[in-house]
Amino acid sequence: MSTATFLNRDEFLKHWQGHRNLTRRTIEKFPAEELFRFSLGGMRTYGELLKEMLTISVPGLEGMVNRDDKPFNHDISVSTKDEVLKLWDEQTEKINELYGKIKDEEFYETFNLFGQFRDQNNNNLLYFLENEIHHRGQGYVYLRALGIEPPYFWER
Amino acid sequence: MSTATFLNRDEFLKHWQGHRNLTRRTIEKFPAEELFRFSLGGMRTYGELLKEMLTISVPGLEGMVNRDDKPFNHDISVSTKDEVLKLWDEQTEKINELYGKIKDEEFYETFNLFGQFRDQNNNNLLYFLENEIHHRGQGYVYLRALGIEPPYFWER
Repeated sequence: MSTATFLNRDEFLKHWQGHRNLTRRTIEKFPAEELFRFSLGGMRTYGELLKEMLTISVPGLEGMVNRDDKPFNHDISVSTKDEVLKLWDEQTEKINELYGKIKDEEFYETFNLFGQFRDQNNNNLLYFLENEIHHRGQGYVYLRALGIEPPYFWER
Repeated sequence: MSTATFLNRDEFLKHWQGHRNLTRRTIEKFPAEELFRFSLGGMRTYGELLKEMLTISVPGLEGMVNRDDKPFNHDISVSTKDEVLKLWDEQTEKINELYGKIKDEEFYETFNLFGQFRDQNNNNLLYFLENEIHHRGQGYVYLRALGIEPPYFWER
């Protein structure tokens, strides 16, 4: 057993923003008219999956920083590619700002995120990132099915 | 700037194995006859994506531990659901064993993984996990398109 550092706080933020940059490029690849229309297997559209990401990361960080456990709300009024990209970019800055307000020791504190996900803050932050990777992978299938080549997964 | 711990070495392993457990359950959900047949958008089958995972994680860890930079080889002779599950389970143990051989300070050492991915070992390990999440998300779309409900993403 060892608690040696696997990943430090600066690395996580840089890593997360690198992934967000990749997600942004998948949004750019989508034809505007398909973002909130196309889907496969009865799943949500990529636009709806993006709304989920946009209503988890920043509201989640706000909850952690302000110790406010109010529920999330995925139902925001965003319905076009331009609106998604605009909000995405605003959140890029907001994430840097809010993340910087988390004190070092707080990554290991337990918080009842959104009033229902009681876990260490580092685990909930990892969840934000991994949920994005998961749904973006689904966006890759949508793009392929639309005949569009997605960005390279390893480019950030 | 701070190098405070975001995630420690024991947490990463536990987290990764939790994800591997989820991936195992997606394999179980696939009808055996579709695993190496069904795909969408001209993509690889889920069976082929799993072969990629199976030829990155353990061979990658072996490379790190033995400082051997030989290339990966995704072309292994695995072609059925039973074979995939058997190898998956063998690798679960092997990953615990190999990961335990990485010294604390080595997570921050740079290694030319597979002779072509020169990065810190922690970043390459994150890549193994995230590549799995990415492709598993695609497997979720395949399952949905086959009319099968995938496991809950948040259950590990």
